[in-house]
Amino acid sequence: MAENTLGKTLKITSFGESHGAYIGVIIDGFPSNFLIDIEDLQNALNRRRPGQSHLTTQRKEDDKFQIISGVFEGRTTGATITILIPNNDAKPTDYEPLKDVYRPSHADFTYQSKYGLRDYRGGGRSSARITAGWVAAGALAEQFLKSVSGIEIVSWVDSVYSVQAEVNEKIITREEIETSVVRCPDDAAAARMEVEIEMAKTEGDSLGGTIRALIRNCPVGLGEPVFGKINAKLGHALLSINAVKGVEFGDGFDFAKFKGSEMNDALAMDGNKITALTNHSGGMQGGISNGADIRFRVAFKPTATISKEQQTVTSDGTETTLSAAGRHDPCVLPRAVPIVDAVTALVLMDLWLENRIAQI
Amino acid sequence: MAENTLGKTLKITSFGESHGAYIGVIIDGFPSNFLIDIEDLQNALNRRRPGQSHLTTQRKEDDKFQIISGVFEGRTTGATITILIPNNDAKPTDYEPLKDVYRPSHADFTYQSKYGLRDYRGGGRSSARITAGWVAAGALAEQFLKSVSGIEIVSWVDSVYSVQAEVNEKIITREEIETSVVRCPDDAAAARMEVEIEMAKTEGDSLGGTIRALIRNCPVGLGEPVFGKINAKLGHALLSINAVKGVEFGDGFDFAKFKGSEMNDALAMDGNKITALTNHSGGMQGGISNGADIRFRVAFKPTATISKEQQTVTSDGTETTLSAAGRHDPCVLPRAVPIVDAVTALVLMDLWLENRIAQI
Amino acid sequence: MAENTLGKTLKITSFGESHGAYIGVIIDGFPSNFLIDIEDLQNALNRRRPGQSHLTTQRKEDDKFQIISGVFEGRTTGATITILIPNNDAKPTDYEPLKDVYRPSHADFTYQSKYGLRDYRGGGRSSARITAGWVAAGALAEQFLKSVSGIEIVSWVDSVYSVQAEVNEKIITREEIETSVVRCPDDAAAARMEVEIEMAKTEGDSLGGTIRALIRNCPVGLGEPVFGKINAKLGHALLSINAVKGVEFGDGFDFAKFKGSEMNDALAMDGNKITALTNHSGGMQGGISNGADIRFRVAFKPTATISKEQQTVTSDGTETTLSAAGRHDPCVLPRAVPIVDAVTALVLMDLWLENRIAQI
Amino acid sequence: MAENTLGKTLKITSFGESHGAYIGVIIDGFPSNFLIDIEDLQNALNRRRPGQSHLTTQRKEDDKFQIISGVFEGRTTGATITILIPNNDAKPTDYEPLKDVYRPSHADFTYQSKYGLRDYRGGGRSSARITAGWVAAGALAEQFLKSVSGIEIVSWVDSVYSVQAEVNEKIITREEIETSVVRCPDDAAAARMEVEIEMAKTEGDSLGGTIRALIRNCPVGLGEPVFGKINAKLGHALLSINAVKGVEFGDGFDFAKFKGSEMNDALAMDGNKITALTNHSGGMQGGISNGADIRFRVAFKPTATISKEQQTVTSDGTETTLSAAGRHDPCVLPRAVPIVDAVTALVLMDLWLENRIAQI
Repeated sequence: MAENTLGKTLKITSFGESHGAYIGVIIDGFPSNFLIDIEDLQNALNRRRPGQSHLTTQRKEDDKFQIISGVFEGRTTGATITILIPNNDAKPTDYEPLKDVYRPSHADFTYQSKYGLRDYRGGGRSSARITAGWVAAGALAEQFLKSVSGIEIVSWVDSVYSVQAEVNEKIITREEIETSVVRCPDDAAAARMEVEIEMAKTEGDSLGGTIRALIRNCPVGLGEPVFGKINAKLGHALLSINAVKGVEFGDGFDFAKFKGSEMNDALAMDGNKITALTNHSGGMQGGISNGADIRFRVAFKPTATISKEQQTVTSDGTETTLSAAGRHDPCVLPRAVPIVDAVTALVLMDLWLENRIAQI
Repeated sequence: MAENTLGKTLKITSFGESHGAYIGVIIDGFPSNFLIDIEDLQNALNRRRPGQSHLTTQRKEDDKFQIISGVFEGRTTGATITILIPNNDAKPTDYEPLKDVYRPSHADFTYQSKYGLRDYRGGGRSSARITAGWVAAGALAEQFLKSVSGIEIVSWVDSVYSVQAEVNEKIITREEIETSVVRCPDDAAAARMEVEIEMAKTEGDSLGGTIRALIRNCPVGLGEPVFGKINAKLGHALLSINAVKGVEFGDGFDFAKFKGSEMNDALAMDGNKITALTNHSGGMQGGISNGADIRFRVAFKPTATISKEQQTVTSDGTETTLSAAGRHDPCVLPRAVPIVDAVTALVLMDLWLENRIAQI
Repeated sequence: MAENTLGKTLKITSFGESHGAYIGVIIDGFPSNFLIDIEDLQNALNRRRPGQSHLTTQRKEDDKFQIISGVFEGRTTGATITILIPNNDAKPTDYEPLKDVYRPSHADFTYQSKYGLRDYRGGGRSSARITAGWVAAGALAEQFLKSVSGIEIVSWVDSVYSVQAEVNEKIITREEIETSVVRCPDDAAAARMEVEIEMAKTEGDSLGGTIRALIRNCPVGLGEPVFGKINAKLGHALLSINAVKGVEFGDGFDFAKFKGSEMNDALAMDGNKITALTNHSGGMQGGISNGADIRFRVAFKPTATISKEQQTVTSDGTETTLSAAGRHDPCVLPRAVPIVDAVTALVLMDLWLENRIAQI
Repeated sequence: MAENTLGKTLKITSFGESHGAYIGVIIDGFPSNFLIDIEDLQNALNRRRPGQSHLTTQRKEDDKFQIISGVFEGRTTGATITILIPNNDAKPTDYEPLKDVYRPSHADFTYQSKYGLRDYRGGGRSSARITAGWVAAGALAEQFLKSVSGIEIVSWVDSVYSVQAEVNEKIITREEIETSVVRCPDDAAAARMEVEIEMAKTEGDSLGGTIRALIRNCPVGLGEPVFGKINAKLGHALLSINAVKGVEFGDGFDFAKFKGSEMNDALAMDGNKITALTNHSGGMQGGISNGADIRFRVAFKPTATISKEQQTVTSDGTETTLSAAGRHDPCVLPRAVPIVDAVTALVLMDLWLENRIAQI
């Protein structure tokens, strides 16, 4: 069974290829009568848009979307919402030379093997371009969550290559993050990241990094054990993003190096509210949100496309070398921030709706 | 929508609580006419069984299962397969004192909040005891994968607290892993882990750690982009296991610190087979297996149950302290190995079946 | 993908075979904190139970069920609810002679062809015995619907062979229906049906018939277009019942013979409530309940098992004749009434839960 | 959970409203490497197209589709296939007068009640216009089934109002059906149907009718008990079509009036093939195809839109009368034939794919 749908109750189905006429998304299960903020939706797409700075691919897409169903007089109707985003700057001919060569650490070989053919233009279906549809859907989910529950999602570039940011999680805001071209709110680190990315670009190379995310004001009770745990669903969605190679919640891999007495989150009363004194667990217990901030970190591999020469093979089994032309990001992290925000919002809204029917 | 089902084409539905009459699993989508190896299934349950060594909980369960549907004269019939595992050593009265106290870093508070009540006996539904059902289902999936494809899953304890194992992944076998009481095939490390776990036990404390896993002989093509990627589905299943806080594939979080030229897996010919010269990616590209070994690592938090005194609250909002009695594992890692094997097998079999209908 | 699950939000998964140890059901998505009426559940099973009258199969099953998960201190916990019903009077040896013969109009040949083997004991998985699990789940759904919404489901035997009942739908009650051994509340017709069934039994033959059903007090708004329409989901569930060959809603097939001006349901005000002056449509428009009684009718074929000699073939392709021994109902209609009630309740509860999240 | 997706393994998701920019469909799970016949797809849409004859609505749509994803160089790629069909002749202003009036036997009142608002332009989401997307998807499924299995679907208008066709099912072809403006291959009956429809049109009234369908060359084994039975899935899909009020398989409701000895399909050998001597059951036993022709009949209510004056109410609860203007079909049957073909093909392809993984 092909799996292009994310979510159970709020469901998005993704479609499109890098160089087709459109990419887009269908949203099913969005409650009716919700007034959509169109400008906010465009802003979300602008954050992910290519060509937004000197650090990103120079492909030019304004990503002006069109909602072609499910919204009437500005409100959701309960019908499937379809959002189309045109591919204006598709240059398929750029990719003719790649028709018969498998790019290392790309999905060329695996798609060709699995499907018996592939749309080789810009990676086709395996391109991160399709996440524009996810971002559009995520923006609606985020509007919904903010409106019904005051939920706030904040993610930022935590590290690039050798540069690690130091951030005060208590006070950081998305506005602050957006002032930085690399989407890192630690100004000193951001400056060094920018230099590293520029250098990699010059060298024809690419850089990996990590994104950190916070969910604030998440109500207690989101998560559907035992296979719809909030961490499992977030993990699934995050690992669906191109180039993601790891994900951890709360103290994550550090948990492995400690004792229970050091890592358990003791409980206490905060007025008449039960609250955890620490938050090693990252805002969840047993896969259900506990009211503390949900915290996680995501690892991205360096962009597979580099212009340095690499050893590879052709589809007919001849060894060759490849120096990638074409437009690409030397580091995907800055543009991945809104994608992390989006899939986080989609998972949360799915769980928020499900939680409405958990108890009689 | 409650989510107690894992998988799309091969589906398991989990049921049961720690101290109910039975825990178990229903398997739907298992192809018919497959001859089940009953002894192998019992062996898998024995690997997860409590009380198997001095390092694990002293709850006594022989975990003798019963298949009550879907198998006829030793073969699967295409009908739903139901496996029951009785809870013999359920001691619900042990848990009476916990009826009104929320254990720190347990799911007591979150279940109570979400559902308005909870089965407090041994954690009820949030107990890892229910993974016995997953292990039973996973054993069948593993038999299937070995039979149809020669696929081999090997996982082991990679680290406990401060002790890190060094293992030659090329040659390690499950038989070797099983000779170690901690399921770590590095004898020296295993000995130190054993000591650490014993010490934690004596102190009334607990330890975290990591498990590493390999999938060998995985055919090219498993994984269903864009939301059924092999890493996303494995991540989802692994993060559904109790106490898991992080997961990474291939070089995982280390990817973040390197350049594309250092981490890309160049391709070459191995006879007439396309092969990757390195395996940073962990056996997959674009979410589809590439024929190399699939590699991942999973982080477990220390057991939340400790006998050291902890600060907590009661259900009526009174602050109190708690020193856990009851039976528990000071370190879940050794018994988590067969659970990791099981969910890995379930995800792979799901994808293996789906891949049979990917191409006309 | 095997399909043993009914429903999207309230989901039941069916398991078991006619002569296995147990048949049963898992229910997922039932809201927590609902107090179950155990006696009512047993009553529902008793209504479907074999051997309840001289008109039904003489297989003796008391159908005492056991709830092994998902209920704590009488209340649903939000976890999967598992109900086991033992097969006590399984006589597999009765079926040895049928091992290699395909019974006409049974599923022997199709199961054998599809799955490569079959559990031939009493029809195995294709037996209507498994609907006992559905009835158990349906009883819980009916309790829920009555409790939250006052919804009432009433179905009865509408016709058997040549006998057609005349019933005043306005006043009929389940209590009244239950006083009749054939579950037909028209006493005169019921008496004639009883005679017809007895005669068919004596002749070694069987009879078909129809069941009519009403849903009262259904709130406006149930149904999830465009593929979760209330009629489409009811139709799916009803056609899943063994021996059902047709289903119609409201005036059903009669619609085909009339004009719009004759069949449209004009609207008017009833106090401040919008109401339809007629109910040709059977309580729904556009697949959504409109507040009027939901009405439908279901056609059952005569029991395929008859003791009259029939022409058939063996599994090795030899033509032969067959005169069925074994226990069976000469007419399934009386025992099918609680099954129709049950699947109706399951579909309605699924839609009722979904409707809670349709609108913000 | 909103339900706009049909199918489990081959899935279509429907989107669009009668007077939006586009209606369309997403197909997920279509195997890769299948060469699409674009002309055949357009022909299928032409068969459903409005304005094709004097008997149908005069809305002018050429229904020229656009495939915007999932197809590369004429072949399916394994990615989601998205088909857009523009609404060119949308005249939303025609519907302004209907903004506040509920049309009898339409979904106006139920949609408004369920969702709190509705797109009143031409029925919005409840319009049968959206089935154009289903027809496009169904055409691809039909191409696939013909190509891999030689499966042939033939459906035709069986009755309109008082006129019943007599057809020789053995020899009827789609080509023959297409020569008739009412899609009834009994010329005499077709002529009378045409007259009846014209008369109804003149009177400002509408007519109901039935469609009969055959599936030829269906392999043994399609159908996934116990909730994916071929009749249950077909029933679900057919009852999802606008205006359908009943469905029956094989002898359907007639079964109710006969004895088992009269209706059982005896088995015999046809060469070395097992075959049924009669086909009362309509090509299936136990919900699985048996190799005989699959036969079913579908009842449609008269078009709800009529220009005769009707009693109704406004959204603010005032009683009023309504004489519909706007464009509509006096009888939907002729244009419903390709819709029945389409959903039949979709269900069959879903089951065909599932059957490929039923047995090891």
